[in-house]
Amino acid sequence: MIVLGIDPGTATTGYGVIVRSDDGAVSLRECGVIRTEAGHDLGDRLREIYEGIGEVIERHRPDAVALEGIFYSKNVRTTVVLGHARGALLLAAKLRGLPVAEYAPAEVKAAVVGTGRATKEQVQFMVQRLLRLREPPRPADAADAVAVALAHCHIASLPSVDHLEPGARVER
Amino acid sequence: MIVLGIDPGTATTGYGVIVRSDDGAVSLRECGVIRTEAGHDLGDRLREIYEGIGEVIERHRPDAVALEGIFYSKNVRTTVVLGHARGALLLAAKLRGLPVAEYAPAEVKAAVVGTGRATKEQVQFMVQRLLRLREPPRPADAADAVAVALAHCHIASLPSVDHLEPGARVER
Repeated sequence: MIVLGIDPGTATTGYGVIVRSDDGAVSLRECGVIRTEAGHDLGDRLREIYEGIGEVIERHRPDAVALEGIFYSKNVRTTVVLGHARGALLLAAKLRGLPVAEYAPAEVKAAVVGTGRATKEQVQFMVQRLLRLREPPRPADAADAVAVALAHCHIASLPSVDHLEPGARVER
Repeated sequence: MIVLGIDPGTATTGYGVIVRSDDGAVSLRECGVIRTEAGHDLGDRLREIYEGIGEVIERHRPDAVALEGIFYSKNVRTTVVLGHARGALLLAAKLRGLPVAEYAPAEVKAAVVGTGRATKEQVQFMVQRLLRLREPPRPADAADAVAVALAHCHIASLPSVDHLEPGARVER
């Protein structure tokens, strides 16, 4: 399973592509950032984001896209502009028929570190550890995107209680 | 000049196509709404909006797109979701190389009625009047989009002071 994780941003969108083999081992295939021109208007920046992530999708043909959910900042304008970028990214995946899962920042932290209150450093440490890298991915936005992809691999691979054999069903 | 006006929304996006002839007369070519499936997830709704407005663009080949600016509602979530829809619409125009102008709701009212505090009914009355229609466009979201297109025609056709002949320059 190939998963593309995305940390959306209008100025910098991080992305990370990881592969999960049948035995559960994960490895990093590529990560990086899509930077948009600060002087460009919003529509042009959206085009840059849309085309940039499109190239990554064409290169790796992921089976799924995992997108970091909206972080409601105190600045409403920032959050709304981020909504535009997320719209462009969602479209890039949907127009190619890819399933998109969204994870809140705390869900990503909980899946990767074990607590939704983990620091950025703890997340980077676990990303490096799980993928057996010499150092954490750089820049930070790329590492965040890799964490989203890892969270998706972890959450999506968990057996649902409904999928257990009847005899093994957990009583609730 | 053919102008496509858009009133963005996640559930209902209004659009209106008007033509402005060289003598300044405006006429309505088409208006309507793109409705998305309430049960669909946001990504699918964005695809519906993107493809719906794409069909309108292909049908009329506008020279410019006029988009209603963000209305910051009290509900931040609503505003952010609207940002996603605006992102999809901006992309649909930008990927076709169309120029996009954005107008705040008050700018649209001021351009069409003469005051930024005009009521919805006043706007509909002037839209009907300017386009010499028997009744205002329906539904209301389509009428709002037509108003945005009219505002663009009006504002874009005003001579800029910098474009006046030197002898006619207004002293400031």
